[in-house]
Amino acid sequence: MTIRTAIVGYGNLGRSVEENIRNQPDMELVGIFSRRAELDTDTPVYPVADIDSYRDSVDVLFLCLGSATDIPEQATAFAASFSTVDTYDNHKKIPAHYEAMDEAAADNGNVAIVSTGWDPGLFSLNRTIASSIFPTSQQNTFWGKGVSQGHSDALRRIDGVKKAVQYTIPREDAIEAARGGHGADVTGHGAHLRQCWVVADESEHDRIREEIVTMPDYFVGYEVEVHFISQEDFARDHQGLPHGGHVITSGTLGGTTNAVEFSLALESNPDFTAAVQVAYGRAAYRLKDAGLTGAFSVLEVPPYLLAPESLEELLTRDV
Amino acid sequence: MTIRTAIVGYGNLGRSVEENIRNQPDMELVGIFSRRAELDTDTPVYPVADIDSYRDSVDVLFLCLGSATDIPEQATAFAASFSTVDTYDNHKKIPAHYEAMDEAAADNGNVAIVSTGWDPGLFSLNRTIASSIFPTSQQNTFWGKGVSQGHSDALRRIDGVKKAVQYTIPREDAIEAARGGHGADVTGHGAHLRQCWVVADESEHDRIREEIVTMPDYFVGYEVEVHFISQEDFARDHQGLPHGGHVITSGTLGGTTNAVEFSLALESNPDFTAAVQVAYGRAAYRLKDAGLTGAFSVLEVPPYLLAPESLEELLTRDV
Repeated sequence: MTIRTAIVGYGNLGRSVEENIRNQPDMELVGIFSRRAELDTDTPVYPVADIDSYRDSVDVLFLCLGSATDIPEQATAFAASFSTVDTYDNHKKIPAHYEAMDEAAADNGNVAIVSTGWDPGLFSLNRTIASSIFPTSQQNTFWGKGVSQGHSDALRRIDGVKKAVQYTIPREDAIEAARGGHGADVTGHGAHLRQCWVVADESEHDRIREEIVTMPDYFVGYEVEVHFISQEDFARDHQGLPHGGHVITSGTLGGTTNAVEFSLALESNPDFTAAVQVAYGRAAYRLKDAGLTGAFSVLEVPPYLLAPESLEELLTRDV
Repeated sequence: MTIRTAIVGYGNLGRSVEENIRNQPDMELVGIFSRRAELDTDTPVYPVADIDSYRDSVDVLFLCLGSATDIPEQATAFAASFSTVDTYDNHKKIPAHYEAMDEAAADNGNVAIVSTGWDPGLFSLNRTIASSIFPTSQQNTFWGKGVSQGHSDALRRIDGVKKAVQYTIPREDAIEAARGGHGADVTGHGAHLRQCWVVADESEHDRIREEIVTMPDYFVGYEVEVHFISQEDFARDHQGLPHGGHVITSGTLGGTTNAVEFSLALESNPDFTAAVQVAYGRAAYRLKDAGLTGAFSVLEVPPYLLAPESLEELLTRDV
């Protein structure tokens, strides 16, 4: 049984999904749908305007589109024609997105798995499972080490900055507090440090450092590290898109403190997000194959549906 | 809606389940079924021989019985009369247990959730999810810090040992290797250290230490720490049943290394195991309520069914 898949959207995420599908034992990639006529890929490329004519040749469509405008504007139309998996990450609007996709998918006999990836996605799953275990619990989510685009942009707007990147890094003392059951004491400013790597002429370093640490909203109130490095070191060490984080949940049971932690250390945020999305593609296929329709959050998907192995194999190997 | 629950078996686990149910917003505890006529509890106690007459007044029965003989001998009879949740932990025999429970439960319109707890249980869930994300991955499970009963018994058999406990502790270097993608190099002996706390007369310390570190199978080949302490310190610091561990999975995606880690740090192994079992009791009730029957592993249960909150609340809070 081969799952016939396709991709719409070809940015970082779409490229990572394409590469990931190549390594799946049970999937083939029918094509990439794009508004652009030419893409730098060996995969067949089709105009997104023609996508409906591929209804019967694609089992699962991966929506690799931006959450800001593309998903809100386009996702329901895709869900009307295909079973879909998206990584919509605007947390506050996920319930509305879920509802819209549920209607579009259910009306047309499709499955739409929404907001996969890692946060939302695997982190959501762990927040729900961990808090279900404790009658009352304290839960903290830490992000990083990861590139913050907004803060990196803010650095690059400073006069004299040639290159810059800002990593958000969870503070070890805050993580330890959460692990020890004291996560309620961790404040927003105290949870993360902001690490800046900057290329600039040496004569400007003092002024730039001062502008960074005194920048309101972005840096004031946080622990800030500023490192000046050469163009060469920047090019060698700071081109990646690492990310990750921790969901730490602690609760008291019969007088004892017990902590549950889920952590990710990712060298490539888009590659990992894509890998999660593709695994949920397998689940979307199987849910539809079982006669189910409508929207599903990661909280509703039975976990064994993610694996290429059969339930019998998993019960022997993992349980 | 209140879920009417009961417990069979009243050892450490049964007592922890009893305490846990008291703190659940949507459960009541009908009673404890035991072979013993008297138990030290305020909960109603009934003879296990009469359990079938409670079929219509109990929605979910928690099997708090030993995995060595009680579960294999008795569990299917309970599953014929009740929806059940167990913590059967003999990994190699779980597929056979699953099959036996599936038949017993399905034939009688019940649900049986098998092998909940944390390993098997939450660790199984994380092994499956994490390995589903990577086309190929390296996965290591570390246990501890936790009391090993077998090794503690071995210490207590040494002449002159008055009290002793052995903790199995994952080695930091092995955990770091697994996190860094080098888990394949971690050997059985290199993964854990064995920490012994012993009460004995001072004149015997050297001989006892020598007997410990040279004991074949149990200690030879491992990093071993032996600490001699007073009766008072032993009584104060070593009465608990801590446990926990790490499931670390790493995989390469498009040339980058990405690591997923699930960790538990438990002050009370039985209290936490019970808390997971009780959460799956909520799922058992809901699965049966939705018209499903037969055995379910933790891999098959949609995670939102564990939570007292509704799916709508979870989509707003956790996703």
